[in-house]
Amino acid sequence: MSSDLLARPHHDGSQLYVDNQTPRLGDSVTVRIRVPRTADITEVHVRHVWDGEPTFATAHVERRTDIEDWWSATVTCHNPVTPYRFLLQGRDGAYLWVNGTGIHRRDVPDNSDFRLVTHPAPPQWAADSVVYQVFPDRFARASDALPVEQIAPDWAVPAAWDDSVDAEVPDVVARQLFGGDLDGVREHLDHLVRLGVTVLYLTPFFPARSNHRYDASTFDAVDPLLGGDEALDRLVAEAHRRGLRVLGDLTTNHTGDEHEWFLAARADPASDERDFYFFHDDGDYDSWLGVHSLPKLNHASAELRDAFFDRPDAPVRKWLSGPNALDGWRVDVANMTGRHNAQDVNHAVAEHMRRTLDGLDGEKLLVGEHVHDHSADAQGSGWHGVMNYSGFTRPLWTWLRDKEFAPNFLGAPLAVPRLGGESVAETIDEFGSLDPWRSRVHSFTLTGSHDTTRIRTLVGDDPAMVRVAAALLLTMPGIPMITYGDEVGMPGTFGEDGRRPMPWDEDRWDAEIFGSYQELIAARHSLEPLRHGGLRWVSATTDSLTYVRETESGGVLVHCARAAHEAFAVPAVHLQGVARGRMVAAAGAEIVPDESTVTLRATRPGYAIWSWDTSTAGHPADATAAQVVA
Amino acid sequence: MSSDLLARPHHDGSQLYVDNQTPRLGDSVTVRIRVPRTADITEVHVRHVWDGEPTFATAHVERRTDIEDWWSATVTCHNPVTPYRFLLQGRDGAYLWVNGTGIHRRDVPDNSDFRLVTHPAPPQWAADSVVYQVFPDRFARASDALPVEQIAPDWAVPAAWDDSVDAEVPDVVARQLFGGDLDGVREHLDHLVRLGVTVLYLTPFFPARSNHRYDASTFDAVDPLLGGDEALDRLVAEAHRRGLRVLGDLTTNHTGDEHEWFLAARADPASDERDFYFFHDDGDYDSWLGVHSLPKLNHASAELRDAFFDRPDAPVRKWLSGPNALDGWRVDVANMTGRHNAQDVNHAVAEHMRRTLDGLDGEKLLVGEHVHDHSADAQGSGWHGVMNYSGFTRPLWTWLRDKEFAPNFLGAPLAVPRLGGESVAETIDEFGSLDPWRSRVHSFTLTGSHDTTRIRTLVGDDPAMVRVAAALLLTMPGIPMITYGDEVGMPGTFGEDGRRPMPWDEDRWDAEIFGSYQELIAARHSLEPLRHGGLRWVSATTDSLTYVRETESGGVLVHCARAAHEAFAVPAVHLQGVARGRMVAAAGAEIVPDESTVTLRATRPGYAIWSWDTSTAGHPADATAAQVVA
Repeated sequence: MSSDLLARPHHDGSQLYVDNQTPRLGDSVTVRIRVPRTADITEVHVRHVWDGEPTFATAHVERRTDIEDWWSATVTCHNPVTPYRFLLQGRDGAYLWVNGTGIHRRDVPDNSDFRLVTHPAPPQWAADSVVYQVFPDRFARASDALPVEQIAPDWAVPAAWDDSVDAEVPDVVARQLFGGDLDGVREHLDHLVRLGVTVLYLTPFFPARSNHRYDASTFDAVDPLLGGDEALDRLVAEAHRRGLRVLGDLTTNHTGDEHEWFLAARADPASDERDFYFFHDDGDYDSWLGVHSLPKLNHASAELRDAFFDRPDAPVRKWLSGPNALDGWRVDVANMTGRHNAQDVNHAVAEHMRRTLDGLDGEKLLVGEHVHDHSADAQGSGWHGVMNYSGFTRPLWTWLRDKEFAPNFLGAPLAVPRLGGESVAETIDEFGSLDPWRSRVHSFTLTGSHDTTRIRTLVGDDPAMVRVAAALLLTMPGIPMITYGDEVGMPGTFGEDGRRPMPWDEDRWDAEIFGSYQELIAARHSLEPLRHGGLRWVSATTDSLTYVRETESGGVLVHCARAAHEAFAVPAVHLQGVARGRMVAAAGAEIVPDESTVTLRATRPGYAIWSWDTSTAGHPADATAAQVVA
Repeated sequence: MSSDLLARPHHDGSQLYVDNQTPRLGDSVTVRIRVPRTADITEVHVRHVWDGEPTFATAHVERRTDIEDWWSATVTCHNPVTPYRFLLQGRDGAYLWVNGTGIHRRDVPDNSDFRLVTHPAPPQWAADSVVYQVFPDRFARASDALPVEQIAPDWAVPAAWDDSVDAEVPDVVARQLFGGDLDGVREHLDHLVRLGVTVLYLTPFFPARSNHRYDASTFDAVDPLLGGDEALDRLVAEAHRRGLRVLGDLTTNHTGDEHEWFLAARADPASDERDFYFFHDDGDYDSWLGVHSLPKLNHASAELRDAFFDRPDAPVRKWLSGPNALDGWRVDVANMTGRHNAQDVNHAVAEHMRRTLDGLDGEKLLVGEHVHDHSADAQGSGWHGVMNYSGFTRPLWTWLRDKEFAPNFLGAPLAVPRLGGESVAETIDEFGSLDPWRSRVHSFTLTGSHDTTRIRTLVGDDPAMVRVAAALLLTMPGIPMITYGDEVGMPGTFGEDGRRPMPWDEDRWDAEIFGSYQELIAARHSLEPLRHGGLRWVSATTDSLTYVRETESGGVLVHCARAAHEAFAVPAVHLQGVARGRMVAAAGAEIVPDESTVTLRATRPGYAIWSWDTSTAGHPADATAAQVVA
């Protein structure tokens, strides 16, 4: 990539380019592409697929400015997912495809096509959210909690809040109990409000025999260790009162081996529950990655699907219904759910769960865990979005990881490499191109999670670099998810080690990191383009990434640097109105526009966010628009 | 691409790199990657997907030569399709992925992963085939055929064999009847044998109201105009006697509006057949691309599926059973079959048809028509392969099309562009990477068909260029399909215009073109690497494409040039044994190996094919192999 990235034709799935973000089957949608006049394009066609056959719609120039033409065409959503891309012809005979990975001068396959999706729309609130992930055992203890030694069950190894995490002691790793609970979370909702997040996402609260509780013994109750059903009820009520939404965490791939279903299945080969699992003839059974305490669920069983999704008391329904209901689910191990040897009912399960949520009162969000290329599972019929490790976390890591500390990622045999910004932008584009825009913007972006190295450690303990990561997190497309503690600079070398108890003594916080998170979250809330805008790259260099988010109302220019760099300038011509803007947030980096150029600079790792308003003009093209008769 | 392409790590799905080409579910397969020692690779891992989760197998050096290491690892086929790619670490910290599009120094999604497939194997004979496509109305008339005027039904416009095709007269285009028939084909099987092809593929022989017969009025009989069932019986018997196999052409997407099913459906809304189609409340119905005479079939109807696939007299079974049975089907409009608005049962239909064929006596081939990116439909559970327009025909066209004549392709709004060989190789690789190797080598490669411009016209009427196209066709992976007449240099500006009657007066043939086809087909039959070898690019320049096909038994180096070019040399070191080879065929181009280099040259558009034997050594690496203890 170069600093001339703006001088390219551009389209993405955002509202600036797609006039109906929630089309229904049969609807016609206007799609637009902006084309620099220097490209001298004479014809534009929109290739889309109709019942499996390619067809073409001819585009016309809808608006024309001094610097670009906006071509538009109408595409009918004949199928639930309509792939499309643009075919451009130049006056010089140039033949160009424009798809989600950019410009191509030869034929390309369909995988990076843009996509229109007619499945029911995700919750309206979702794209405006900032999510805060809480691991209940480690976030906070209720003020009246009993000493952990008194409540610890047989499987647990009690720990005091300031103890270190025994993350590498095999026999202790999942058993160390710090005794965080849901009333503790409730008592600390002030912290979430102060930070500015809008959604509380709780990792599992079901009873289990581990501190992570991904080995549920029932889906029917809240772990008494966490305060039981009443504590969840109190927490959700209080969160809702404060305008926060709450997501739960449900494992569809497996249960714990103490789960009531599994106990029934093991006790009686003739039981209904027997078919919920994959038992062998000898009484053994299949489990998650061979971990025997996590027996794998068999979603080909109609009875399991009924128990999981359809009965009035089915867990998927129960916790999302009635007063103080949760606002959605994060689905654990979504990528493996329903996949077992020759059986693959993953999409059927996801669609079943989605239909169930769509049928409930209130707008419920459904986000699947997915640790690698999720595109085949994120076309919009099942999960609204996924945890976007592949298209956000890993590219971010490759750019920001410390030169010395080589992080591992979820069992990969080689450390995540350290790469320049050009590769990072390409990777983000390539993975992003495989998802419908709607799935992309309803996926969680994250710098890490309870399963990974903490961002503070990843960047080599450099607070300035944590703030760069936060800037990327809060200004890129997607729903930002912050893991509790990241905002105060908590370290952690890998997943387990990162699950340290939240320090409530603010002296132990990094105030600059916390301030940046606050500032950046506030910027996201106040600037519509950061939540609903498209994404155009302005520049990608080894040490800097610069992009613009745009809606009809305005533009936000973001410059992030992982190191100090010499000033360089990009032409202002493709950023109409930029000179009339204002600096929203800055730390270590600068954006200095004038009439003809925008100068970008960094004196250390940092970010700068510059915003301008085009709402008076109504459309970015209108700054110098002359209406065109098509 | 450069002329240094051989100095890269390489893997493909061929037997040199994958030790079991027909694994079953649960089998362990050894996969190998050759890595030049100059790359200084210290670790190799094979990332593969297991129930939706990535997992890694560590590779070890299995063989080592002076110039390369062969790393191998074992991958278990835990699912019907197992995607895999290689992760390499260099001594200098280099981080490399190797997938079907080559080397990547950043993370990549899964779509270009290699793939192991455990579905039942395709017919053993298929990969050794060369297919000859016959359009029955235009190939030959039986020696005792009645004058066409006497047999022409009401819909037909009779034409004499030497009449021109009224390809642009709208009212005549599908009605012009030249009166070719199946006894005519039988009487000309000598021609197929002389040419060297091994499979006769007949476009539809069912009764219809058009010369192309894609609007069948029944699937239960051969059109009497073609000689009826007895003529087909005679033809297949004679073809089999001569060692030729015969494929039929079945339309699963629609029938003609005179089809017995459709007549029954239209006559009686309560009939079983009503649900075979998409009738509207007003009696209207949906049809193929709005062509009213071709009502679309509704494969969600269990009765239709039963009638099409399951009953003893179902067309899919009937013509492939008993004495003188066909050897498989080409499926018309396979890409649209079962796709209709919110309904998409395409894969279920393809899998149903495949199961049906797999259950019949004899080895039956199933190839689907697909005019664009077919990868989603070619993962191996349904069609054995497809018509590979996207991954072969269009790239070939972009390289060989005349500078002046700008061919259209099946309704695309812009002409196919003219591109250099670098882009052509990249396009072939990118599309090829999306298919399992098995699907790729069981897909039809073709320079055109009855639906497109003829190769003779495409290349600007230059016989030398036709021969270059034939060389690519017969030396690349895939099952070569030759449309009747291409081998004698028949022209045609687009699909209809290309359906000219076969000239049987050899004075009207281009003898050099015919000689090249004969020579190239013979080379394919005699050189196992051309049928079963992998594909490594040696060089791709604007005007030349050079590649090597390899098996354990030997290598075949192919150099194709679309124009005269200066001689250039590539290192011989990565083509072990090349100096001991021999020229197999050459026209206009040269391959001159010595101990250290291979010189490539062309004095005009042409090809050269050079073959060498490594079977005495047993493995390409063995030329200088030292056994390695892993």
